[in-house]
Amino acid sequence: MSFETQGDFESRVRASFARQGLMESFGAKMSEVAAGETVIELGFADHLTQQHGFLHAGVITSVMDSAAGFAAMTVMPEAAEVLTVELKSSLMRPAAAARFRVEGRVLKAGRSIIFTEAHAYGLDSGQSRLIAHLTASMMVIEGRDGVSG
Amino acid sequence: MSFETQGDFESRVRASFARQGLMESFGAKMSEVAAGETVIELGFADHLTQQHGFLHAGVITSVMDSAAGFAAMTVMPEAAEVLTVELKSSLMRPAAAARFRVEGRVLKAGRSIIFTEAHAYGLDSGQSRLIAHLTASMMVIEGRDGVSG
Amino acid sequence: MSFETQGDFESRVRASFARQGLMESFGAKMSEVAAGETVIELGFADHLTQQHGFLHAGVITSVMDSAAGFAAMTVMPEAAEVLTVELKSSLMRPAAAARFRVEGRVLKAGRSIIFTEAHAYGLDSGQSRLIAHLTASMMVIEGRDGVSG
Amino acid sequence: MSFETQGDFESRVRASFARQGLMESFGAKMSEVAAGETVIELGFADHLTQQHGFLHAGVITSVMDSAAGFAAMTVMPEAAEVLTVELKSSLMRPAAAARFRVEGRVLKAGRSIIFTEAHAYGLDSGQSRLIAHLTASMMVIEGRDGVSG
Repeated sequence: MSFETQGDFESRVRASFARQGLMESFGAKMSEVAAGETVIELGFADHLTQQHGFLHAGVITSVMDSAAGFAAMTVMPEAAEVLTVELKSSLMRPAAAARFRVEGRVLKAGRSIIFTEAHAYGLDSGQSRLIAHLTASMMVIEGRDGVSG
Repeated sequence: MSFETQGDFESRVRASFARQGLMESFGAKMSEVAAGETVIELGFADHLTQQHGFLHAGVITSVMDSAAGFAAMTVMPEAAEVLTVELKSSLMRPAAAARFRVEGRVLKAGRSIIFTEAHAYGLDSGQSRLIAHLTASMMVIEGRDGVSG
Repeated sequence: MSFETQGDFESRVRASFARQGLMESFGAKMSEVAAGETVIELGFADHLTQQHGFLHAGVITSVMDSAAGFAAMTVMPEAAEVLTVELKSSLMRPAAAARFRVEGRVLKAGRSIIFTEAHAYGLDSGQSRLIAHLTASMMVIEGRDGVSG
Repeated sequence: MSFETQGDFESRVRASFARQGLMESFGAKMSEVAAGETVIELGFADHLTQQHGFLHAGVITSVMDSAAGFAAMTVMPEAAEVLTVELKSSLMRPAAAARFRVEGRVLKAGRSIIFTEAHAYGLDSGQSRLIAHLTASMMVIEGRDGVSG
């Protein structure tokens, strides 16, 4: 697929990512931005765990949501903002790796709704394994008070 | 609905919640535990935000997942552990309140899968408004290596 | 919850339901319409089954989608049409009853997206049991070519 | 990905598909079966429509559920049956084409849960366009009374 973009979408996306307090507290880094795609990387940390010592399902889901949401933002008009309408996350394997790579991408860019998905991979001993998948509907917000901050 | 429980399920659930590094880093507290139900409370914090200054969709989703997962645990056998198979989160309003109350409950308790839901409310100026909803399938794990920690 | 409605929403909803060839082929009837709510009833039939002789998950999901979509339509402007953006269906028990009652309702009515849910009950020997649950995001379509038919 | 299979999985899957009254009433045909994958094809028909004359969201979802469920069945033990635990369907474009091709595949095969997805394409004038996507969790059922029929 190829997507239409406007202006310097990479700078807009990186600036918006930098304002996400949650991604900073997770230690997550946006490593790649392209038209319709982003990649976020994350290391294991004790403050991100559930009761068995794996990453909490919500951490992996949060990072997939960010990767998918910013993938959507790459194909939005310059002044538009993105909000998640809904997301579904499938947790296929325990998130027990040392590092994680999360790839978000646009499935279909509509005028008001952008359909996205994300794949999360656990990276350990040189191996990459699919651990989770997300689909999410992202809304294009233009000129609505109280969203831009 | 009434649910069958085993032994001191409240202590088991509270001990397991206390091991979730993520809920501690979020400042979330489990305020209520009953058969088939839990309540978790959470305050707004800057390290939990997305780019517009609201709570990140993933934070609300994480807390709904925990509330629903521990609701499922209340109706499981004593030695069983809970893992989230999948979750869907609907974000109905921006998470812009000062405090949040998240109620998880069991919809149907099966032998291997427990169907759950959660409602998240924003609390502000004495008002409570529904901001998000989750459904999740929780798996009952008995005696599988590597889950208990 | 109370919802704002416009004009004779019940007639609009019943006329639109009557145009759904699928509901007619299922033998489904819309039995109740109120602000923010609809009920659809359905009997078991051999042409609606999966391989074990239960109703196919897709049948229950289709009827829940219709009940939820028409619940959304009750709170839309008079000229608006409804389209399903996405749905999630949880199949809690096999759909093995003689008759089924599906209740759709609005969770939150926004300007462009209406969040809905539906519960499906199996009715047998005077008993009603929850067999499935759906959440769906419905889009409000106004004046877009090609939707009205 | 490569998947382990047992015996003549294609015959088992085709026989089970042939018992789905719903797929027969839809006029759907299973055109391909491979390890971890199936393809189902479907033509437009008036008895499958919603109120605007497109295929009902529930029809596309039903066929995606069948394609994904039988993809899961290809990697199950010989005596096992498949039941859908939950599904999420994203409706990206109106289902307005003359014919439809639905591809189901396994994302991760576990012992008790098989994670699947499906893509639905509208075929018109020699063009193929993605119109919908599904993810679903399929349960492996072995020796449970009342499922085989």
